[in-house]
Amino acid sequence: MATTTGHTVKAFDDDLDELRALISQMGGLAEAAIADAVQALARKDTDLALRVIEGDKKIDQIEVDVERLAVRLIALRAPMADDLREVVAALKTAGVIERIGDYAKNIAKRVAIFAESNPIAPMTIVPEMARVVAQMVKSALDAFVARDAELAARVRERDKTVDDFYNSLFRTLLTYMMENPNNITASAHLLFIAKNLERIGDHATNVAEMVYYSATGVYLDEREKGGDSITPVKAG
Amino acid sequence: MATTTGHTVKAFDDDLDELRALISQMGGLAEAAIADAVQALARKDTDLALRVIEGDKKIDQIEVDVERLAVRLIALRAPMADDLREVVAALKTAGVIERIGDYAKNIAKRVAIFAESNPIAPMTIVPEMARVVAQMVKSALDAFVARDAELAARVRERDKTVDDFYNSLFRTLLTYMMENPNNITASAHLLFIAKNLERIGDHATNVAEMVYYSATGVYLDEREKGGDSITPVKAG
Repeated sequence: MATTTGHTVKAFDDDLDELRALISQMGGLAEAAIADAVQALARKDTDLALRVIEGDKKIDQIEVDVERLAVRLIALRAPMADDLREVVAALKTAGVIERIGDYAKNIAKRVAIFAESNPIAPMTIVPEMARVVAQMVKSALDAFVARDAELAARVRERDKTVDDFYNSLFRTLLTYMMENPNNITASAHLLFIAKNLERIGDHATNVAEMVYYSATGVYLDEREKGGDSITPVKAG
Repeated sequence: MATTTGHTVKAFDDDLDELRALISQMGGLAEAAIADAVQALARKDTDLALRVIEGDKKIDQIEVDVERLAVRLIALRAPMADDLREVVAALKTAGVIERIGDYAKNIAKRVAIFAESNPIAPMTIVPEMARVVAQMVKSALDAFVARDAELAARVRERDKTVDDFYNSLFRTLLTYMMENPNNITASAHLLFIAKNLERIGDHATNVAEMVYYSATGVYLDEREKGGDSITPVKAG
């Protein structure tokens, strides 16, 4: 990659490792935020939800750190084009994790609504969906750090499962709303939660696609992103 | 800013202008996509919706061009820290516009659902909300290109209006669902459309905040982002 001296290459690699370590740390926090937000939801635990909301600031702070380090790294090391692309990929990945953290926070913000409402049956699918999604985030970031194209490809496979979860939940919630107007408020909030999880899956997939391309030079096939079931559900 | 020779500074500024011109072009396409998606929705025009969906590829392509140009610019010009930050800001802004384009595409994807359903009363608020949001995107990008802190601050002011639109629409749609189960499917899709518009407003605000900070060195006060009305709506 870099055509400079061994010493400079070493220094650059060390900086890049530091960048990747920050991204791993961010990723770990984001995974935990997803798991905690969904657990708070399942247990109506508003204290845990508040901790997720507060904890998002730490994720945002690390993104700022990543950006500063990336700028310093480029300014000091003047990396060649391939290495620069690595740094840009790191910046983009940090941006994606920041968004994942936001989605987890959005889920946590809705916990208070469910704390006051009756149990809502379709809710039981959410922790399952969240587990798949959090695992995708973990694998995508492991693939990023290890530049593991195979692992990246497997992440994308899982996105279909998440879309199936989402479409199923979407239809179930609409039916649930139709059966009883008292379910409507909680179901509407749960729709958004399901959508947030589906979007997290999309973002993990975006990271995986970037890793795959970066490791192999080949794009994974174009895929259809994040559709709700477009077929209307009939009221009845 | 740059401490290199006048010639190099000039070349860098030209490259930066090219980068900003690409971002303006992207922004223009994204604004048009918002307006077209909402017009397609209001007129049940599935052809226009398809053109928005197809047109998003062009926005994605320009983001790739921005990234390539940014990498080339850094590699060739080796800009100093302040100029580097400008380039990073341009990269981030391009990323935000790409997301705005995705939201417009998501709105367009739902047009087909409404083409088959009965008119839904709260829909009339959506074009108003979209107009405010598209204007915010335009102003945020004008502020970015002109580094206009005052304009950036005004963009953020408007985000409150968008949040008010969203909260009003959220409550109206829930009530509408409760009144008649036949409204539920269309209302659920409209909820997501309202949320997409609200998110576009948030993203325009993020760009405005970045511009403000970049121009003044001071952060606009922390603001609360994108809450749905957290107070539950009672079924009645």
